[in-house]
Amino acid sequence: MTSLPSAVAARVVLDRDVAASYAVDASMRSTAPESFTVVRARDLSDVVAVLEHASATGTPVVPQGARTSLAGGATASEGAIVLNVEGIDGIRDIDVVEGHAVVGPGVVTADLKQEAARAGLFYPPDPASSATCTVGGNVATNAGGLCSIKYGVTADYVKALQVVLPGGEVMRTGHRTAKGVAGYDLTGLVVGSEGTLGVVTEVMVRLLPAPDPSLTALATFDSLDAAVAGIVALRRDPHRPSLLEILDRATVAALQDLADFGFPRDCEAVLLVQSDRPGHADEDVARFAGLLTAAGASEVAAADDEQEAEALMAGRRALYPAFERKGPRLAEDICVPVGRLADFIRAGQEVSSRTGVEILLSGHGGDGNLHPSFFFTAGDPDSLHRAEAAFGELVGIGLSLGGTITGEHGVGTLKAPWLERELGAAEVRRQRRVKALFDPQGIMNPGKVFGP
Amino acid sequence: MTSLPSAVAARVVLDRDVAASYAVDASMRSTAPESFTVVRARDLSDVVAVLEHASATGTPVVPQGARTSLAGGATASEGAIVLNVEGIDGIRDIDVVEGHAVVGPGVVTADLKQEAARAGLFYPPDPASSATCTVGGNVATNAGGLCSIKYGVTADYVKALQVVLPGGEVMRTGHRTAKGVAGYDLTGLVVGSEGTLGVVTEVMVRLLPAPDPSLTALATFDSLDAAVAGIVALRRDPHRPSLLEILDRATVAALQDLADFGFPRDCEAVLLVQSDRPGHADEDVARFAGLLTAAGASEVAAADDEQEAEALMAGRRALYPAFERKGPRLAEDICVPVGRLADFIRAGQEVSSRTGVEILLSGHGGDGNLHPSFFFTAGDPDSLHRAEAAFGELVGIGLSLGGTITGEHGVGTLKAPWLERELGAAEVRRQRRVKALFDPQGIMNPGKVFGP
Repeated sequence: MTSLPSAVAARVVLDRDVAASYAVDASMRSTAPESFTVVRARDLSDVVAVLEHASATGTPVVPQGARTSLAGGATASEGAIVLNVEGIDGIRDIDVVEGHAVVGPGVVTADLKQEAARAGLFYPPDPASSATCTVGGNVATNAGGLCSIKYGVTADYVKALQVVLPGGEVMRTGHRTAKGVAGYDLTGLVVGSEGTLGVVTEVMVRLLPAPDPSLTALATFDSLDAAVAGIVALRRDPHRPSLLEILDRATVAALQDLADFGFPRDCEAVLLVQSDRPGHADEDVARFAGLLTAAGASEVAAADDEQEAEALMAGRRALYPAFERKGPRLAEDICVPVGRLADFIRAGQEVSSRTGVEILLSGHGGDGNLHPSFFFTAGDPDSLHRAEAAFGELVGIGLSLGGTITGEHGVGTLKAPWLERELGAAEVRRQRRVKALFDPQGIMNPGKVFGP
Repeated sequence: MTSLPSAVAARVVLDRDVAASYAVDASMRSTAPESFTVVRARDLSDVVAVLEHASATGTPVVPQGARTSLAGGATASEGAIVLNVEGIDGIRDIDVVEGHAVVGPGVVTADLKQEAARAGLFYPPDPASSATCTVGGNVATNAGGLCSIKYGVTADYVKALQVVLPGGEVMRTGHRTAKGVAGYDLTGLVVGSEGTLGVVTEVMVRLLPAPDPSLTALATFDSLDAAVAGIVALRRDPHRPSLLEILDRATVAALQDLADFGFPRDCEAVLLVQSDRPGHADEDVARFAGLLTAAGASEVAAADDEQEAEALMAGRRALYPAFERKGPRLAEDICVPVGRLADFIRAGQEVSSRTGVEILLSGHGGDGNLHPSFFFTAGDPDSLHRAEAAFGELVGIGLSLGGTITGEHGVGTLKAPWLERELGAAEVRRQRRVKALFDPQGIMNPGKVFGP
């Protein structure tokens, strides 16, 4: 690789240990390549300089933010410039009249939510990693999260983008207005493109009026089918819940191993549901509780106030500590039709008992989007191999149920082997041609989404 | 043009008068070309056969539904096959669990809304022409309508598409699941592409739980700024109105000329606002009325029941008869930032008084999306010329206020001359390259969006 232009030389991370920390993301088996260069961009001109240089020299570029990708979307590739944009982190023009803000890709999602709340507004997307992940990464993966059932995903809140393309050209997409249909929707094309088309340097996000604090109801079920009937009933309620999570039997047991959250160990499923509807959250959770009872819940608790609501959520919030305690895991992100959720969970349980791989199935039940975890023994290649095989089997089961290989984490490197199975060879070829239109040299995040 | 394949020969409209009716749309000055062929497709195979033939012979194809386009998006071009898909009009798989349906592009929007309602569900998009326009046209233009302020636009309700591309290849985009991020969002790229990429033959639409019947509040204002302050206050209410329309002084006068709707002729603006929130529409309109009074309304009326609500809407519903009575008009579709609405309306009034062209300004105030009407005298070329000049001047004013040349009607042929002014030459070149990827011969709806 030729040396970087002097304009960005000062942005290069020289310390090899520090640089190494930028070479990996939060996905399992993410490892640094032999050779790479880390540039911490501070502004648009840094990104332009890097992409001019990259095109001129044919150097791969791996754009990244906080590296919370669970799919290997931000892992360095051999010989690449790792272009970190965490430093482009301004929040400006919070506009209460139009309901939008302009933010840098390095803004932490929770910080944007907080700044919006200070203005009496609401930025809905809330991936589980919102305390650490960045808006740029959310845009790259079209991140969802806990509130998607009511509020949708990141794409629903991106009005306009500034994107630097290979060669350094700056593309502006979208509209500042509430509506606009002049020309093709290239904003939507870039959202979810996982850094394979260009580098997002500015995002205009749409903000809503602030909701109320959430109240919670919790229900336990002795039957998976009854739990899914509960989900279906809640989805048909005219006031959509703002959260609807499901935990399977094995997940409940793992949580109770960590601490007593009051879950019965022998239940088949736990549902957690919330409302944040201004002025009516209490009546909503009471009605939700009634719907869950009618669906066949064995026990239902509804929180009258925020403290109780948080107490009911304690088990769900302990999910990651409970996972940690069990050791290393592969994390899935399958989304199936809601009506097939019980079939999918049963299939996962069958795979677990047949293969001996411990699999916990939980996630955003209201969307049919589960995050199964496959545990393996550290340092035991055979255990890892079996977990990988079980992971792959469940991806196939998800597809056979009409599902997708990724609901919100992105394809990254981990799911790339399955992309063609979901889309078909012709659609993958077409998508590669779309990529080539923006990135004719194939230098943007190579190996991600489409594989090697 | 070579003769069409025998498979679709029976679909060709032979009667020249009938064929002529398919050559034009609802846009002003839409005229039939010298030579064209109309094919009324009944199914996917008809569309495939036409696009195979079109590519083989280099024949232009103009896809169309009910031809309600106000922007000239569906007008026949010289030598084209006019491919009408009104006959592909099935509604199937209304799924109350997943909340979706699969529909043909020829389904009339109101029919889809009605079928969804029968299942206790709701298809929100509601262009003013919903009684006659088709879902395919709504997808082509990313149509909005009266409820966009709360429910968004057509793109927000399209989950997946089947699209026939030039050459006859069938492309499938999107996901049947609630979420899905595997690959680029080509669904979003096709929505709003105005028939320039391919022919949509199937649409999977997202359906919501049904809302309540709408209740209405109406307010009159002696000041445009106060009316816009009312819009801003309503947009910040935690319960977003389901409709928020504005009528300017000249529009109010035209309505009162038609019949007495109880509007004071000397008011500067009328706002109409609705709520359809299940169980709470009455408290919403009462609160909306209070917000409008606080914003400076001179008179406010809130409807307690559906009949009263309809009575308050009577004036708004009489808009098209009032237009008709005045004679031929050019219809605009500018969207500006909500905070610039009063400036835009004043600028339109100034253009009217300076040029002598009668201009009525009304539309979806809550989105900043107005549909100004420019009236001219039939058979008077000078009058038409002055109306066109005023129309063009207001497009420029909209752009200078940070607006867009089209909020929901599409670029079509009428707005094509302004596309580059809004997007810039580089973005138009990029969009043309996107088109060429799907349509290398440039046979899909030529002349639309990008101009000749």
